[in-house]
Amino acid sequence: MAIEAARLSPSLAAAAFLGRRALPATHFTRRLPLLLLSRASASSSGGDGRAVALPSSELRKRRSSASATGEDSKLGAIRRLFVRPDIAIDAYIVPSQDAHQSEFIAECFMRRTYLTGFTGSAGTAVVTKNNAAFWTDGRYFLQAEKELSHEWTLMRSGNHGVPTTIEWLNDVLPSGCRIGIDPFLFSFDAAEELKDAIANKNHELIMISDFNLVDEIWGESRPEPPKEPVRVHDIKYAGIDVPSKLSYVRSELAENGCESVVISMLDEIAWLLNMRGSDVPHSPVFYSYLIVEMSTATLFVDRNKVSEDVLEHLEKAGVTLKPYNAILSSVERLAEKGAKLWLDSSSVNAAIASVFRSSCDRYRKKTGKTGRQIGKDTSSDELTSKSHVQNGALNGLYKVSPVTLAKSIKNNAEIRGMKNSHLRDAAALAEFWCWLEEEVRKTVALTEVQVAEKLLEFRQKQDGFIETSFDTISGYGANGAIIHYRPTPDSCSSVGSDNLFLLDSGAQYIDGTTDITRTVHFGEPSQRQKECFTRVLQGHIALDQAVFPERTPGFVLDVLARSSLWKIGLDYRHGTGHGVGAALNVHEGPQSISYRYGNLTALQKGMIVSNEPGYYEDNSFGIRIENLVLVKEVNLANSFGGISYLGFEKLTFVPIQGAKKKDILFQGSIVSVLEAQLEDSGPSQALLDLINGCPLATGDEFACWWQSAVDSTPFSQ
Amino acid sequence: MAIEAARLSPSLAAAAFLGRRALPATHFTRRLPLLLLSRASASSSGGDGRAVALPSSELRKRRSSASATGEDSKLGAIRRLFVRPDIAIDAYIVPSQDAHQSEFIAECFMRRTYLTGFTGSAGTAVVTKNNAAFWTDGRYFLQAEKELSHEWTLMRSGNHGVPTTIEWLNDVLPSGCRIGIDPFLFSFDAAEELKDAIANKNHELIMISDFNLVDEIWGESRPEPPKEPVRVHDIKYAGIDVPSKLSYVRSELAENGCESVVISMLDEIAWLLNMRGSDVPHSPVFYSYLIVEMSTATLFVDRNKVSEDVLEHLEKAGVTLKPYNAILSSVERLAEKGAKLWLDSSSVNAAIASVFRSSCDRYRKKTGKTGRQIGKDTSSDELTSKSHVQNGALNGLYKVSPVTLAKSIKNNAEIRGMKNSHLRDAAALAEFWCWLEEEVRKTVALTEVQVAEKLLEFRQKQDGFIETSFDTISGYGANGAIIHYRPTPDSCSSVGSDNLFLLDSGAQYIDGTTDITRTVHFGEPSQRQKECFTRVLQGHIALDQAVFPERTPGFVLDVLARSSLWKIGLDYRHGTGHGVGAALNVHEGPQSISYRYGNLTALQKGMIVSNEPGYYEDNSFGIRIENLVLVKEVNLANSFGGISYLGFEKLTFVPIQGAKKKDILFQGSIVSVLEAQLEDSGPSQALLDLINGCPLATGDEFACWWQSAVDSTPFSQ
Repeated sequence: MAIEAARLSPSLAAAAFLGRRALPATHFTRRLPLLLLSRASASSSGGDGRAVALPSSELRKRRSSASATGEDSKLGAIRRLFVRPDIAIDAYIVPSQDAHQSEFIAECFMRRTYLTGFTGSAGTAVVTKNNAAFWTDGRYFLQAEKELSHEWTLMRSGNHGVPTTIEWLNDVLPSGCRIGIDPFLFSFDAAEELKDAIANKNHELIMISDFNLVDEIWGESRPEPPKEPVRVHDIKYAGIDVPSKLSYVRSELAENGCESVVISMLDEIAWLLNMRGSDVPHSPVFYSYLIVEMSTATLFVDRNKVSEDVLEHLEKAGVTLKPYNAILSSVERLAEKGAKLWLDSSSVNAAIASVFRSSCDRYRKKTGKTGRQIGKDTSSDELTSKSHVQNGALNGLYKVSPVTLAKSIKNNAEIRGMKNSHLRDAAALAEFWCWLEEEVRKTVALTEVQVAEKLLEFRQKQDGFIETSFDTISGYGANGAIIHYRPTPDSCSSVGSDNLFLLDSGAQYIDGTTDITRTVHFGEPSQRQKECFTRVLQGHIALDQAVFPERTPGFVLDVLARSSLWKIGLDYRHGTGHGVGAALNVHEGPQSISYRYGNLTALQKGMIVSNEPGYYEDNSFGIRIENLVLVKEVNLANSFGGISYLGFEKLTFVPIQGAKKKDILFQGSIVSVLEAQLEDSGPSQALLDLINGCPLATGDEFACWWQSAVDSTPFSQ
Repeated sequence: MAIEAARLSPSLAAAAFLGRRALPATHFTRRLPLLLLSRASASSSGGDGRAVALPSSELRKRRSSASATGEDSKLGAIRRLFVRPDIAIDAYIVPSQDAHQSEFIAECFMRRTYLTGFTGSAGTAVVTKNNAAFWTDGRYFLQAEKELSHEWTLMRSGNHGVPTTIEWLNDVLPSGCRIGIDPFLFSFDAAEELKDAIANKNHELIMISDFNLVDEIWGESRPEPPKEPVRVHDIKYAGIDVPSKLSYVRSELAENGCESVVISMLDEIAWLLNMRGSDVPHSPVFYSYLIVEMSTATLFVDRNKVSEDVLEHLEKAGVTLKPYNAILSSVERLAEKGAKLWLDSSSVNAAIASVFRSSCDRYRKKTGKTGRQIGKDTSSDELTSKSHVQNGALNGLYKVSPVTLAKSIKNNAEIRGMKNSHLRDAAALAEFWCWLEEEVRKTVALTEVQVAEKLLEFRQKQDGFIETSFDTISGYGANGAIIHYRPTPDSCSSVGSDNLFLLDSGAQYIDGTTDITRTVHFGEPSQRQKECFTRVLQGHIALDQAVFPERTPGFVLDVLARSSLWKIGLDYRHGTGHGVGAALNVHEGPQSISYRYGNLTALQKGMIVSNEPGYYEDNSFGIRIENLVLVKEVNLANSFGGISYLGFEKLTFVPIQGAKKKDILFQGSIVSVLEAQLEDSGPSQALLDLINGCPLATGDEFACWWQSAVDSTPFSQ
């Protein structure tokens, strides 16, 4: 799945919000991978009130009809709330995210969508007493024009002369206004930055945490929060039991002089507790918070989601339950105990952090005790660059969550699960491509949507399949050039043999998560397409074959994937690689391979990243070639500096189209061999030979660089 | 000339000093190139009292005899000063640098050398009432053991368990001591950091600016400050006249809300005023400060150095003269005027900055006026990461000098001068290599020193030759593996045909500065040497051939030079490229190509950088292949993103040894063609064909990658 440089993540959106068009790269140390990523997030409440993951296209259809109820009444209703004495604000900001900085969110949290009618994944709405403005980026201008009512002003972010949200607020509001937000929907960092920025115009930031204004007007028709049961993630896939993971977190707490930590990222909780859920589409997570203390751990989750066996699993690990909504009062009590609390201010929401700080203040006043500043992690550029972290923050350690890095380094069981699920995924894809190659020759052409649906069918046949890991990007010809493309049944193209077909898809399996892009041509590619494809493939191969010393940040390798394109003045506007969770989120941090040079996280043994250079020619075609790879130690004849040297092992076993495609690509034999391999033992040498050898052996139309690039290096390993 | 990662520059030394073994990369935005660089700096006062640049080896010989006068007496003498009522300190820190953060310094400023007897280029001495300790790095351990008296404790920086200067001071001094420095010898940043660090142990930093304690004990025998006449750098080489340059600086002042700026880097003053000098070896600069105000400019320089024609040159540009020592009183007057002053706190010394700040304070108290904080350059990571810049600093703008970037982007005349001087340099080198190839066949072997001296002879024959741009590194066999090697007549090796010979040298010409490294084998290299040489050359070629979008920081390209070595677990411990001045310092910023990821300076059209990957096998051999290259715009078929794409044009016209070396390398025809080309018109096509074609055409022993790397890229330009 491609990395979307254009998409504003929660943190980035907050940044854009603050009037900064370009942030210093160092700002992004923590949230980088999530920042760049994401597709439309969508779920839908089924008839039984339970959240069911629907493809975005389906959701969009349902939304458009719903929007006939009229946005005007919503704007009117929300403005009437402005004057309520317990609210008393002049403006309200409605961002896209949920309380956990999630990439995919449940429908009941899609307040921005409900308020504006806009169904795209990225955007921020701001309502004042007299104005309503909506910011989104270039991918969504057309869609927003269609979906927003005339009362909304569309702000085309990134276009020349378009103000940022802050600039606009300062322009339309007289000084000294009260600007409201739901503090659950802003990270602590984002809220603090917002507060500082509006203070310049004497505006006050009003955090309304008791209720969300959009929820108030949504009323009865608001979908129920998801109630899907959670499940235990089997130790044979998780590899490390919960007590061991908690013990690691506690050792980190001790080392940092802390007594407790609030974890709010849903994938971090799922990983730490070896649990999975299905509250949102595409990510096997469940809505919850977790507080880990030195001798206890508390999971804040809807009790109805927890079956007896899950309860037993948690009890064994000493984890007790509290209601999801009890998080604030528990944080308050931690503060009252004088506990030293670790908060990841880039992910923990402002509601939690504010409650902690104000409770600490109350506690100090009452007891006369002086809070103490805990040493900050000065090695984190992100934190030290934020002045607000240097003030106050007594009794708090603001530092990247102790789970983030641990989760990114996969253990042997996780690696085995990723390999096995990738083999099954490869079998499904090989079957699919064989099928498609036949179909394209027929007279009745299939649409991009039909092709994506058929791919889902093939995947569903595989053991352990759960759902797609993101909405499939099925783009033929010019549609392939839209990095964020998602076909709809009404308006999509047919897949033919006159142009390139880009297919970016992935799946969640019980034992792993996949993400793969292939670009193929069923006819005769143009000279231009051959050149671009070759250069993208050269970049892919250069990165795949890279060897690098330990402690190398991912961005150092980014140029390897681009330099062949650069040689002829081409490039692509997204990162080259993102982290991938093991049976978890398809996008995870902290590592990335990108031109965001602020992310100094080193690539480490056991991390998984995508390798996905591309090239997009507007209105013409798109190319992307994506594998997932595992960072591993390589054994070399030398070891300069006495350190380890690292390289990549391919997890993705699907051939890349070569020149003589008819002879070697998508042939049934691959499928059968793949299917014979779905055991824990991993792929056989025969399979690996087949996969590695056949599609990349020779070539003159699509140059086959894999082999030749390796061969042309004398003394190569 | 190689970039020395190990060498501590002034700023880095200050950092090491502060107890930080590893600084965050972002720290180095400003001073990076200088940080990494430098060789021994040496000049010597001649019999007539004038400074004469001597090779370091010569200087070292003279020093050793001088050191017989006894270090004990010096330590005793300096300690007696500690108790003088006007001094009253418990410790004194003596760094290596002069007041301008220069790489090469005049002998009269070599206080650390005088005090300790240690003649190497890097080191910091600290004297307390009871102890004397000296810090230097691994390159100098042996030399320091030989040269220091028994009263000095040698601190082997970088070795396990060796304390930093600060750690040591905190260990040996009781709390609450007074630690003295000469504030001229510390940048403002370094002094502030030092002050903060020692404040933790209640020590006070005492800035003694009226006199230097070492100078006090040096007395009559201290060499005179250099009095070499300055000269006008002809406009045909400088390209832009002084009024235009001053006008640019003033526009920068206006844009930043400032009224004046102090320039203290000697190469910046030389560039801005189109003047050159010879106060120090290897760099054509002269000791001075410059203050530019909106309508005036004042050069602080010894009046005796300024001839009538130079005076006229300065008068035409509206530049007036003041004595070098009048800088502090002038800065005081600026403060009293309430002038908004721009200071580059990474280069301006603490004496100047402190005087400015204290004068501002006095001025405000007297007038009751409130100083104003001028907006800081928040885009500079370096500055924002320093908290002291965010406090006080009223009426001061602490930001990289407005000259730094301007100087690094060469104009057409400078480029022409660089190209011409490189052609003449190539002629000298080609003659030299022809000569050496013959010599090596003879029975009496030449030493590394004799070879370097002969090279100087060949260069001296070239028009416009002034001096070497650094001490020649002439390393045969195992000596080539010492990155910082400098042969001495007593102890150097002979150059033979059994091993590799590494020769890194450069020259200052009237119109340009050169820096080139070649590594050759006059016999049969081993398989290991062939492999390593090939991989270094692959890296060199990959960087040479790179094309990249505008706004790309240099560090992005560093991996291109290393990845071939990394593939077999090899690497080199220095940067790949440094900036080079046009008839100025052989090392300049702000750009670099290095693994110091904090230097976000983009490579820009007109910049000159070295391309010098290497590999060093301890006790065996060293390889480095270095050209200088000019950043230029490349015309490509595409221009993705509507931006410019940049690449490199080689300035260095000396063949690289290929496989069939006897046939094609160092042949007389190249010399004659080169010599025929020393015109302003630049090289002819015939010459370029000859140079580009012949030494890199084919090869199987030393693989000739140039051509094959290009050929193997389909669709290449």
